[in-house]
Amino acid sequence: MVESPEPGEALEQVIRLVRASFHRLKIAGEELHRHLGVTTAMRCVLEDLVETGEQTVPQIARAKSVSRQHIQSLADSLVAARLVEFRPNPAHRRSLLLDLTPHGRSVFAAMQRAEAPVLSGIAAGLPDADLAATRRVLAALNAALERRQTAVITDPA
Amino acid sequence: MVESPEPGEALEQVIRLVRASFHRLKIAGEELHRHLGVTTAMRCVLEDLVETGEQTVPQIARAKSVSRQHIQSLADSLVAARLVEFRPNPAHRRSLLLDLTPHGRSVFAAMQRAEAPVLSGIAAGLPDADLAATRRVLAALNAALERRQTAVITDPA
Repeated sequence: MVESPEPGEALEQVIRLVRASFHRLKIAGEELHRHLGVTTAMRCVLEDLVETGEQTVPQIARAKSVSRQHIQSLADSLVAARLVEFRPNPAHRRSLLLDLTPHGRSVFAAMQRAEAPVLSGIAAGLPDADLAATRRVLAALNAALERRQTAVITDPA
Repeated sequence: MVESPEPGEALEQVIRLVRASFHRLKIAGEELHRHLGVTTAMRCVLEDLVETGEQTVPQIARAKSVSRQHIQSLADSLVAARLVEFRPNPAHRRSLLLDLTPHGRSVFAAMQRAEAPVLSGIAAGLPDADLAATRRVLAALNAALERRQTAVITDPA
């Protein structure tokens, strides 16, 4: 039995669950990958590089809506762990490109292998249609927030 | 047209969207409430006290799966802003109870009034059934992660 709150209130409940999930996912990731010395935040940068390819620190920060300093510090930790490396950037001499090392790629693949059974186990109890609806709602929420953010940044007022 | 990935993969996409939404929500909240001097993290503690009533710092930290130090520092900022206050705890002499001040309640109500039209605007484009499915999926994800966390904490190995 699902109660039907007013749409804004239903979205507010979704947002609370997003925040709660975020913190729990962080802990679960840290737990799962502790032996590799890779934090959840470091993992997110690796994932981004795997998905999108080589990028500068400001590019990653902008895509994730986090500070450049935060990504710079994660990049430094990842370089120290030899999981990523900086390369010359043909487009900007002063802004180096960050990319995975072969070691970084193999560590990330190992992380994904460790995560797969956990994710499948949790997803097994969830209807495909619900998972698809969740992706639609969160993608729409993200897009709406991104539009607001862009409006704030470009609005001179 | 919605593609149907394998359930574990669909959940992985949900998790990426949860992370992206978390960061964007943080920025949107900071933007909306900047004039009040209340950060998104401070707002979460206020919300928790409104919803659950007075609590100790360790209780809030446990419920949110974040560190006690993090909540203590937020509580200190909220006390400095006179939005919350510490009260004697009949159950534990050394662990004070945190609760909203009347000023804190009225500021939180003002924040909710500012958020309501934004939430309704975003939610207006989303089917009720999708919002309900999203709440089911994220609640199930949270519950599964909480069980894992408890298992790790209680497992002596």
